[in-house]
Amino acid sequence: MTPAPDWLSAPPAAIDRASEGLARARQDQLIKPPGALGRLEDLAIRLAGLQRTVLPAVDCVSICLFAGDHGVAAEGISAFPQSVTVAMLGSFAGGLSAVSVLAREQGASLELINLGTATPVDVPGVLNLDLGRGTANFTCAPAMTEEQLERALKAGREAAQRAHGGGMQLFIGGEMGIGNTTAATALAAALLDEAPDALAGPGTGLNAQGVAHKREVIRRALSLHQAYLHQPREALRRLGGFEIAALAGAFIACAQMGLPVLVDGFICTASALAAERLCPGTRDWLLFAHRSGEPGHARLLRALGAEPLLDLGLRLGEGSGAAVAMPLLRLACSLHRDMATFEEAGVANQSP
Amino acid sequence: MTPAPDWLSAPPAAIDRASEGLARARQDQLIKPPGALGRLEDLAIRLAGLQRTVLPAVDCVSICLFAGDHGVAAEGISAFPQSVTVAMLGSFAGGLSAVSVLAREQGASLELINLGTATPVDVPGVLNLDLGRGTANFTCAPAMTEEQLERALKAGREAAQRAHGGGMQLFIGGEMGIGNTTAATALAAALLDEAPDALAGPGTGLNAQGVAHKREVIRRALSLHQAYLHQPREALRRLGGFEIAALAGAFIACAQMGLPVLVDGFICTASALAAERLCPGTRDWLLFAHRSGEPGHARLLRALGAEPLLDLGLRLGEGSGAAVAMPLLRLACSLHRDMATFEEAGVANQSP
Repeated sequence: MTPAPDWLSAPPAAIDRASEGLARARQDQLIKPPGALGRLEDLAIRLAGLQRTVLPAVDCVSICLFAGDHGVAAEGISAFPQSVTVAMLGSFAGGLSAVSVLAREQGASLELINLGTATPVDVPGVLNLDLGRGTANFTCAPAMTEEQLERALKAGREAAQRAHGGGMQLFIGGEMGIGNTTAATALAAALLDEAPDALAGPGTGLNAQGVAHKREVIRRALSLHQAYLHQPREALRRLGGFEIAALAGAFIACAQMGLPVLVDGFICTASALAAERLCPGTRDWLLFAHRSGEPGHARLLRALGAEPLLDLGLRLGEGSGAAVAMPLLRLACSLHRDMATFEEAGVANQSP
Repeated sequence: MTPAPDWLSAPPAAIDRASEGLARARQDQLIKPPGALGRLEDLAIRLAGLQRTVLPAVDCVSICLFAGDHGVAAEGISAFPQSVTVAMLGSFAGGLSAVSVLAREQGASLELINLGTATPVDVPGVLNLDLGRGTANFTCAPAMTEEQLERALKAGREAAQRAHGGGMQLFIGGEMGIGNTTAATALAAALLDEAPDALAGPGTGLNAQGVAHKREVIRRALSLHQAYLHQPREALRRLGGFEIAALAGAFIACAQMGLPVLVDGFICTASALAAERLCPGTRDWLLFAHRSGEPGHARLLRALGAEPLLDLGLRLGEGSGAAVAMPLLRLACSLHRDMATFEEAGVANQSP
């Protein structure tokens, strides 16, 4: 058993309860009935505590999209061929995909990080980290070597550090990798200690027969690795994927540096649970964007005590759901900053 | 019984099923698994049919905020004094309120229309229509005369016509009026033929005792006007308010002219149900922004077969919930327009 590297065991940053309290007091003075802005009030207050300021902002947002291939794709668990991972990297870089459109439209930065695809990628605008030609097929062997896991976690950390160093106010992680709902479901089953049957879903679009096969593949993997799955790091190494580990590393680093994260859908939430298990307290730095159409997502959200902002049946990945929820954070901050108080507006705030 | 004026009985515009079909076909070709953008796909397709174009847009949005006072405020059914209606008109015009911030932040036009407050308003930027010094107390008499109702409906229609004539692509109605959740609840009870007990809620912030009193006030009103409430126009005249009727008029006119509407919370939804009853088919032109914290809202949404986009516990009114949901429509249109098709991107769209 390799000891956890130092950086993973460093504690998350402390939340600034004083700024949170001042933000709560401000919300109670704004010209509206107390609580009338519902969860937008909570968001502004929470961001105040995370950003250590009574007037938080999410003008500068970094979306880091991590891609990688999955050996388990050989088991026929996806509706799309493995070549799509590489093709989509081209589409992200070319501004053609959902997350590209959402980032551009909202002025968010989009960074593309290829951790390792089955065939090499040579697309301008993609950072290639060459951890391997995809992970190993985890029905036969651990998905990653110890070194690969270490490098994937660090790749996430470094992306978070770039975002933090660049003055970003919010971090969004995205992912792309044919087969990664299978990996995320296996990892979720291990971390939650649940049978995969209730967690597995159609991913990009499997039919009922495809989902049944996916369940069977995951059961085989869980059975093979069973003896090691009580250790979250081993569960991540054996069942995860490059991009899933990178997201976990990014979330942990964000929490340690004090950069709030908006978590996307099923795969990102599996990474978030892994991050919380590896570095307890990480969860405090995570906001949850949406409830995905993938059935296992609700169970992961419950385990993290998370109530996401949107429920629109999104199940695309790429960080797209988080990018769609971004305006809610921005508007929550604008309302919090720009509405007048009852006193400033000269409006009576209670019945005499 | 006054016959309905001609304009109310004109049918809503027809939805362009051809554009809707083309938009659906486009969604199925975009580089994503079919259906992976969930309700954002439905939104783009629906807007295509309403705007009669395969590539809809919501760049130009008109928010019309209708204000008016309510005679029923004399019964002590609000947590705020009646003077707040006038004071808030000043805040809207001064850019200090929630909807002002949301409109400014998103480049939406904001028009302020005062239909009649208990004390006159003289604020630059507010259109004063002087229908009366608030409605009559509907526990004693009909809230509006026939002439007042007529003028309120027309005020809404004219606002919708200005928006349509100004090239707006989406109409949002907002409301302000101390006591208007009581009026909207009474109207909802009449239109739904339900007892007010399950519909009445805290409004701007009544405690349990206040809500019980509000229910009792509404029961008295329903009992007084009972013989007339099977006619939607009479229900609106006797129990509604200036701004509630104006919203209904605006929604009907939008439907007739073919301008899509994004409906805000409880009060706007009560107006929407009145509009649908007065001019069947209006509902097809309405999108629903959010599920409000006000308990009667769910029942109104169900009656309209509406599944709103957001559920954030908002209960402010002003059109604020619709303004918060605007970005979802905008992003749905951007994704629909700017994502590439599988063919354009050179990405395989199915497993071989």
